[in-house]
Amino acid sequence: MKIDNLLLGTAYYAEYMPYERIEEDMKMMKCAYINVIRIAESTWSTWEPQDNVYDFSVLHQVIQAASKYDIQVIIGTPTYAVPAWLVKKHPDILAETHNGISRYGHRQNMDITNPHYLFYAERIIRSLMEQVKDYENVIGFQLDNETKSYDTCSVTAQTQFIDYLKNKYPNIDHLNKEFGLTYWSNQINSWRDFPDIRGTINASLGAEYEKFQRKLVTDFLSWQAEIVSEYKRPEQFITQNFDYDWRDYSFGLQPEVNQFEAAKALTIPGFDIYHPSRHELTGKEIAFGGSIGRGVARYNGGNNYLILETQAQGNLSWLPYEGQLRLQAYSHLANGANSVMYWHWHSIHNSLETYWKGILSHDLDENPTYHELCQFGQEWSAIGSSLKNLNKVCDVAIMIDNNALSGMKWFPIHEQLKYNDILRWLYDAFYNINVECDIIHSSEKELNKYKLIVVPALYSASETTLLHLDGYVKNGGHLLSTFKTGFSDPSLKVYDDRQPHLLTECFGMSYQQFTLPHQVSLESSKLPKDTYPLYWMELLCPDTAEIWASYHHPHYQKYAAITHNYYGKGTATYLGCYFDGNSLEKLLLHLLQEISISPAENQYPIIIKKGFNERNEEIIYYLNYSDQPAPFLYQGNKGTILLKNKRLCNEDIEPGTTYTLEPWNLIILKTSSSL
Amino acid sequence: MKIDNLLLGTAYYAEYMPYERIEEDMKMMKCAYINVIRIAESTWSTWEPQDNVYDFSVLHQVIQAASKYDIQVIIGTPTYAVPAWLVKKHPDILAETHNGISRYGHRQNMDITNPHYLFYAERIIRSLMEQVKDYENVIGFQLDNETKSYDTCSVTAQTQFIDYLKNKYPNIDHLNKEFGLTYWSNQINSWRDFPDIRGTINASLGAEYEKFQRKLVTDFLSWQAEIVSEYKRPEQFITQNFDYDWRDYSFGLQPEVNQFEAAKALTIPGFDIYHPSRHELTGKEIAFGGSIGRGVARYNGGNNYLILETQAQGNLSWLPYEGQLRLQAYSHLANGANSVMYWHWHSIHNSLETYWKGILSHDLDENPTYHELCQFGQEWSAIGSSLKNLNKVCDVAIMIDNNALSGMKWFPIHEQLKYNDILRWLYDAFYNINVECDIIHSSEKELNKYKLIVVPALYSASETTLLHLDGYVKNGGHLLSTFKTGFSDPSLKVYDDRQPHLLTECFGMSYQQFTLPHQVSLESSKLPKDTYPLYWMELLCPDTAEIWASYHHPHYQKYAAITHNYYGKGTATYLGCYFDGNSLEKLLLHLLQEISISPAENQYPIIIKKGFNERNEEIIYYLNYSDQPAPFLYQGNKGTILLKNKRLCNEDIEPGTTYTLEPWNLIILKTSSSL
Amino acid sequence: MKIDNLLLGTAYYAEYMPYERIEEDMKMMKCAYINVIRIAESTWSTWEPQDNVYDFSVLHQVIQAASKYDIQVIIGTPTYAVPAWLVKKHPDILAETHNGISRYGHRQNMDITNPHYLFYAERIIRSLMEQVKDYENVIGFQLDNETKSYDTCSVTAQTQFIDYLKNKYPNIDHLNKEFGLTYWSNQINSWRDFPDIRGTINASLGAEYEKFQRKLVTDFLSWQAEIVSEYKRPEQFITQNFDYDWRDYSFGLQPEVNQFEAAKALTIPGFDIYHPSRHELTGKEIAFGGSIGRGVARYNGGNNYLILETQAQGNLSWLPYEGQLRLQAYSHLANGANSVMYWHWHSIHNSLETYWKGILSHDLDENPTYHELCQFGQEWSAIGSSLKNLNKVCDVAIMIDNNALSGMKWFPIHEQLKYNDILRWLYDAFYNINVECDIIHSSEKELNKYKLIVVPALYSASETTLLHLDGYVKNGGHLLSTFKTGFSDPSLKVYDDRQPHLLTECFGMSYQQFTLPHQVSLESSKLPKDTYPLYWMELLCPDTAEIWASYHHPHYQKYAAITHNYYGKGTATYLGCYFDGNSLEKLLLHLLQEISISPAENQYPIIIKKGFNERNEEIIYYLNYSDQPAPFLYQGNKGTILLKNKRLCNEDIEPGTTYTLEPWNLIILKTSSSL
Repeated sequence: MKIDNLLLGTAYYAEYMPYERIEEDMKMMKCAYINVIRIAESTWSTWEPQDNVYDFSVLHQVIQAASKYDIQVIIGTPTYAVPAWLVKKHPDILAETHNGISRYGHRQNMDITNPHYLFYAERIIRSLMEQVKDYENVIGFQLDNETKSYDTCSVTAQTQFIDYLKNKYPNIDHLNKEFGLTYWSNQINSWRDFPDIRGTINASLGAEYEKFQRKLVTDFLSWQAEIVSEYKRPEQFITQNFDYDWRDYSFGLQPEVNQFEAAKALTIPGFDIYHPSRHELTGKEIAFGGSIGRGVARYNGGNNYLILETQAQGNLSWLPYEGQLRLQAYSHLANGANSVMYWHWHSIHNSLETYWKGILSHDLDENPTYHELCQFGQEWSAIGSSLKNLNKVCDVAIMIDNNALSGMKWFPIHEQLKYNDILRWLYDAFYNINVECDIIHSSEKELNKYKLIVVPALYSASETTLLHLDGYVKNGGHLLSTFKTGFSDPSLKVYDDRQPHLLTECFGMSYQQFTLPHQVSLESSKLPKDTYPLYWMELLCPDTAEIWASYHHPHYQKYAAITHNYYGKGTATYLGCYFDGNSLEKLLLHLLQEISISPAENQYPIIIKKGFNERNEEIIYYLNYSDQPAPFLYQGNKGTILLKNKRLCNEDIEPGTTYTLEPWNLIILKTSSSL
Repeated sequence: MKIDNLLLGTAYYAEYMPYERIEEDMKMMKCAYINVIRIAESTWSTWEPQDNVYDFSVLHQVIQAASKYDIQVIIGTPTYAVPAWLVKKHPDILAETHNGISRYGHRQNMDITNPHYLFYAERIIRSLMEQVKDYENVIGFQLDNETKSYDTCSVTAQTQFIDYLKNKYPNIDHLNKEFGLTYWSNQINSWRDFPDIRGTINASLGAEYEKFQRKLVTDFLSWQAEIVSEYKRPEQFITQNFDYDWRDYSFGLQPEVNQFEAAKALTIPGFDIYHPSRHELTGKEIAFGGSIGRGVARYNGGNNYLILETQAQGNLSWLPYEGQLRLQAYSHLANGANSVMYWHWHSIHNSLETYWKGILSHDLDENPTYHELCQFGQEWSAIGSSLKNLNKVCDVAIMIDNNALSGMKWFPIHEQLKYNDILRWLYDAFYNINVECDIIHSSEKELNKYKLIVVPALYSASETTLLHLDGYVKNGGHLLSTFKTGFSDPSLKVYDDRQPHLLTECFGMSYQQFTLPHQVSLESSKLPKDTYPLYWMELLCPDTAEIWASYHHPHYQKYAAITHNYYGKGTATYLGCYFDGNSLEKLLLHLLQEISISPAENQYPIIIKKGFNERNEEIIYYLNYSDQPAPFLYQGNKGTILLKNKRLCNEDIEPGTTYTLEPWNLIILKTSSSL
Repeated sequence: MKIDNLLLGTAYYAEYMPYERIEEDMKMMKCAYINVIRIAESTWSTWEPQDNVYDFSVLHQVIQAASKYDIQVIIGTPTYAVPAWLVKKHPDILAETHNGISRYGHRQNMDITNPHYLFYAERIIRSLMEQVKDYENVIGFQLDNETKSYDTCSVTAQTQFIDYLKNKYPNIDHLNKEFGLTYWSNQINSWRDFPDIRGTINASLGAEYEKFQRKLVTDFLSWQAEIVSEYKRPEQFITQNFDYDWRDYSFGLQPEVNQFEAAKALTIPGFDIYHPSRHELTGKEIAFGGSIGRGVARYNGGNNYLILETQAQGNLSWLPYEGQLRLQAYSHLANGANSVMYWHWHSIHNSLETYWKGILSHDLDENPTYHELCQFGQEWSAIGSSLKNLNKVCDVAIMIDNNALSGMKWFPIHEQLKYNDILRWLYDAFYNINVECDIIHSSEKELNKYKLIVVPALYSASETTLLHLDGYVKNGGHLLSTFKTGFSDPSLKVYDDRQPHLLTECFGMSYQQFTLPHQVSLESSKLPKDTYPLYWMELLCPDTAEIWASYHHPHYQKYAAITHNYYGKGTATYLGCYFDGNSLEKLLLHLLQEISISPAENQYPIIIKKGFNERNEEIIYYLNYSDQPAPFLYQGNKGTILLKNKRLCNEDIEPGTTYTLEPWNLIILKTSSSL
């Protein structure tokens, strides 16, 4: 989905305000060039204060006031936080999870398979849609918010799970065999005997339930999309606010949702990205989240995604330094976002998120954060048409999979080395050396358009995927995989032949044993001297492969640690162990040279991002994620500087000239290259 | 309430003894000058072994034996530990809390709103009172013990809470508005829909329930006091054994009781103070606990408090060095206590507190701890009449508030910086520089008698309190406040104008933003060179205020960290960040000079404590909390030395002379100054 | 029970295999000289897939295939993992514990007092026995597996507990008195009022329930033994797979089973020992577990024990270095084991223990671990007859007791100093200086056969035991005890006279007080200079005893830390504090000299193990637990070398010659000495 103008916006909760000030807020937004607000997504009890009693007055007030100031509106369905009366009426709406039954108060505590919940949710969605469908300035709809299954293990959910299994394994013996249920007497010889899933110690069964829970999310969003579609106009979009694995900020792949599948119900996927700030602002999370965003969009036929939420003042440790709010906003665009929307306009005076601060502080007055927003709001109104609908083209793709993540969770290597750590280890190393990466799903068929496919710990992999990778290399592709790839089938059953399954020829090596490193170092001309395997080491037995690193240790010296193999027309590189990110960067530079991909001339903290705009002009961002001025020698094509640190401009860029990025600042170019 | 003689005593449990030895115990106590025992407070099952079947024989034996040895008795109502038969009969007596339903076994596991509990509790109190009311040597009654609400969330308690709210907010819309319940769809539009409080994520509602739980304690004690009052003689006192926020010892303000309010039902408040010992004995907890004790007493018209429990041998790490038991006992008196009572006489041979040792070890024989007690017991019998009913007068008061503590709990800054940490940070700094402090409640009206009011993180503050502080400064008072004061109203709703609310003129500065410090130092001539803001920093924008410290950091240098303002006839100093206690002491010395309060000539480990006895003589304690001899130059008025290290004496004190405190020892003077 | 041949074996689960390969597995086992497999112990749902529907086909296949390859079989009753249908039918089978009701999925989650469970368990045992009783190659039966009470607190269990108490204390007043239930109003004046045990804070009652739970295990095994005995042939043995206190490996005495008592139902006790490997392989756990094994066997009239499980590749960090699997196997024999059986043959492809790897990896092919097994399998077939049924004779015995462990758990000293830490502190020190120790139960009557009895923290001790120890010393024995011995009676009631109870004369000292050390060192000519008491120190007052160490500290110098007393014909040494193991070794060497026990000339990592084989030949093992070659001077009797590092041999051993142990290797001698 393409947009007409870059969206600069914010979540807006008139309902939470200590006094009426809608008109005043709209004025302030307008001054800051905010052109879109997102409303309604968590305030069901405001719209329906009692069962079947409605009050949409604030809703209309806000939409009409927005309209007056030319501000567009995204309407969220309010279903992720249920009203008190509904739970009092149907207590079974509260999800029963692995940790028992949820209590009322929190959002996202309901059982999304519960028929009472679904009945009332549909009714409020329909009531809301009736109210808003005719407003011109309503441009789209957000289904629910950060939807998950909330670990529902209710009788309804578990019954549906049994049906799901029956459908997959009509013969229950196949289930027993596939999941190895004989172990510890867990065999189920009649569907009637199916035990409460919550006690299972069987990783195959447990991970299958997680897969089923992800399907519940896909189904739920699809169900909401159908309802909304009955009301929406063709030009209005449908989106979801997807999020990420959360480690006090957006860290990695969201384990509880298959976003690639769930996005099928949407017009355009939306995301919220929260990230460290101040001295910890690196742009990595913005880039990583953007790669996922583009991946999910592409999987569903698009190029771009929306940022529906990101931090303004944010948490206590995130209050941005001067310049950072602006740098962040441009970073989102540089990664392919078509919107930057803040969570949220004002800092809330009561309840849980009082210290998750918005654009405005609690005094609801102008402040440094607001002033910075006004600055780049104005810039966007000037140059936004060159920046929107960016089409990014990458040589490298990283392949990910929710079920591999589940596998690594059920069979953990180390607290510090979960699936997402491995994913980010690779992603961040490429980021630091300025190689932009796409992120693709393991079911992706079109591998050939990439020069290099990177596979982090694809623990669970279907034979189809493995053969696919094998074929890709045979046909000239380059493959880089870490340890653990291809270890088990999609049911987390370990493959019963030599590892890595189906890829021993491709990688030119195999292994039978692995252990945890202790006083081992890596011996390699391609790595810095003091590189140590951490947390995990596979004892690789090379066949046709070159040894790129071996283990320095009296008992392991006969095994390889990193191998590189020429196979068919391509190459396959295997990392049998984990080590520090800095050494990985060195290795990647070596590999890239080997396979003729040239990384950029600069490295982090100077980050370079490229893409093509709608006019097929190449747009290049140079971003400085540091507190120091950063000079760089420009050696690209001729073109125009659109923005140079603090100011817009329109001057020629001179190849061979050194430009200096100010701290936390950027330069944007437009060149004559085209796709 | 004044006492005739210093009370030196112990809790005594004849019931727990492995064999009958009441007479022998009384003899040993008499030898140690013990003149009071506390009995009966946790042995309901002894007095009423079966429903309505009573056996008070041990009770009578003990009181009569005590009488024979001129030992007075405090009777505790036994309601804080319920008998097994009662719970078997009425299982609903066990409190249902945030963590589920309590199990039988522990003390303080009951629902104090439960009508069955109240019925049986009243009956055992009345039965007990009938037994003891005529004994001459019974001098007072302790209601229950360390009473709390034990986090009761029973249906009874929650129903009472709803009534309490209905009474406060007859219009439910006001509740929704005041508590911001619109957030996350938490609105309650009918009292009938009120959800289980235990799930709430709304800090306003959650803190209100905590306030209500504190009221339950006040009401419960008042109810017991009324019953006891029906039986007691006029000269008999009623007390409670209040305790403190517990961090393996008595640390700070007790969060679960509003002791200022709860003490209304009492004749005199009692406390238990437990504290680190050996190399960690500093006297701080004894002083802090005493300041609370005096504060609670004054709020209710008295001057002194009782120490109903403190450690003898205590826990494993508390076995006192030689001299410490005696130093501790005098420390309590120096802070205004009228009693020192040990928990407990003998070390218990079974159950939970076997290693919380009493005066006697498990061998029930004399030992070094007992011998030391005998020594100062004798001293008290000689000079106690000069030391009792001490009237302490302080220039400085620290203002505290339970609800501010709740606010800081719901919106924590840092695990290491809770409300009580901030309170103790200030209290301890004054302690170390020998400025004695009162502790007053935020509702205190009589501020003018103090030269300096210190306000630690008064997060939740009514506008009345804030205006009160403003007026105090205008009229010539000096105010010192930390960060976070005046941030929210009593419902934990953040004030929606510039911070600190209502005090921006008084402090001559305001702020909109705050963050967590990282590589920031404080630039100030009033602080040591390497002082760093820790955990929290507000970005203060000075108006009329002097900047006493600013932030050394590229992005924060424009903001102030500490300000000092001349306002009306007084001054107001604001600490916008937290830093180490040593630096705080330096700053306080500077501030005290500025506002003409002169601290003592000595500092910790020499601690100086003063007060006036009943004859209006000034009593001065010099206490040495260290393992080293500590000389000090006496520069006060003429007077008499009552006690000089190891011995009683009666010699003149000579101003200008240097005296030496022996390790863990003290000197007590009486001077001619009067109040 | 003596065996005919050393048993080299493995647990074997044909049921868990991804495809049928029984014949192939047997062939591979045969090649590795495996002569026994253990089957059936956790696969109830395989044998009885539905209620009363049986399928023993795999069972017969395996036994018959084994028979074909001369492999013997141990049959395990499958009762420790219940089938899904059984729990669906009788949900009350799941144990209700201190942590609530177990969920289905895990093993060992059932209530072993539940009548439904017992009914079905008996039925499957009988069905299984019917199937296997006639096979010639079935040599024995294992009852259940690692049996515990699984903390059952069901109504059935608690009712039985009340009956157990009624029987022990017909007069309930005695119960109240003995357990000190008066404390905190816990008195029980009618059995009807007995509260749920799970809430108790009374250590006496709590520990008694733990004792009762251990009795449930004894009773359960005895009940299974009776059933099995109805079917078994006289020459078939009955065993149990006992385990140890688990700290990620087999660490100490198993708290939940009184193995000495439970083994009464068995022919021979079996154990599983898991231990650190690679650079952490020390042999200590193998020796310690073996000492327990011999102790349990002796208590029941035997000399030897079975190792039913130990690691092959094991956990991720255990993959053995080359040579270690073999060294470990010999270590078991050297300690008196008659079998080494691996858990397990193959690495499981699904479920919980996928990464607890067997002999084979998931590829089910030969690998380095398998190859090493083949090597020493062959050696055993050559020299096994000299090594089996080893009779070990020790001068030193360590006395242990489950209830003392309970006491130290209810009244902990320090997280790092639990009962088993103290036990292992002593055991390991003797191990390091090559003094082999027996482990005996506190009820052991035959103390006189030992020169030295070592008593770690016998917190709870009956007066019988204490008098027994006193008599032992009087008669010429040597006693070494740590702190805490004799502190309480068997009900965890602290003795009410001077400590250590009944032994003050024997030790020639007593104490009343104790504390935690802080900046204290030990002053002693028998200890290294910088030895510090850790975690605990008793303030010993010597009477007749010599002071072997005193406390260097201004306040404790008058007390002793370690005393040594001549008493009757023997000596008694008391350690009043804990300190580092290295210093303990020094002290022990001194003590051993004093009491004329000569330790071996070598120390760890060279470990020497001795015993007498059936022909009354002395067998001596020299084992090198290190990565370095280790030379030793042989000064023993003449004899023959059976095995010299990598090879079998049959050469004379020359006293006065230096032999070198290769890394992780060993030498086995046979000498002419006899018992």
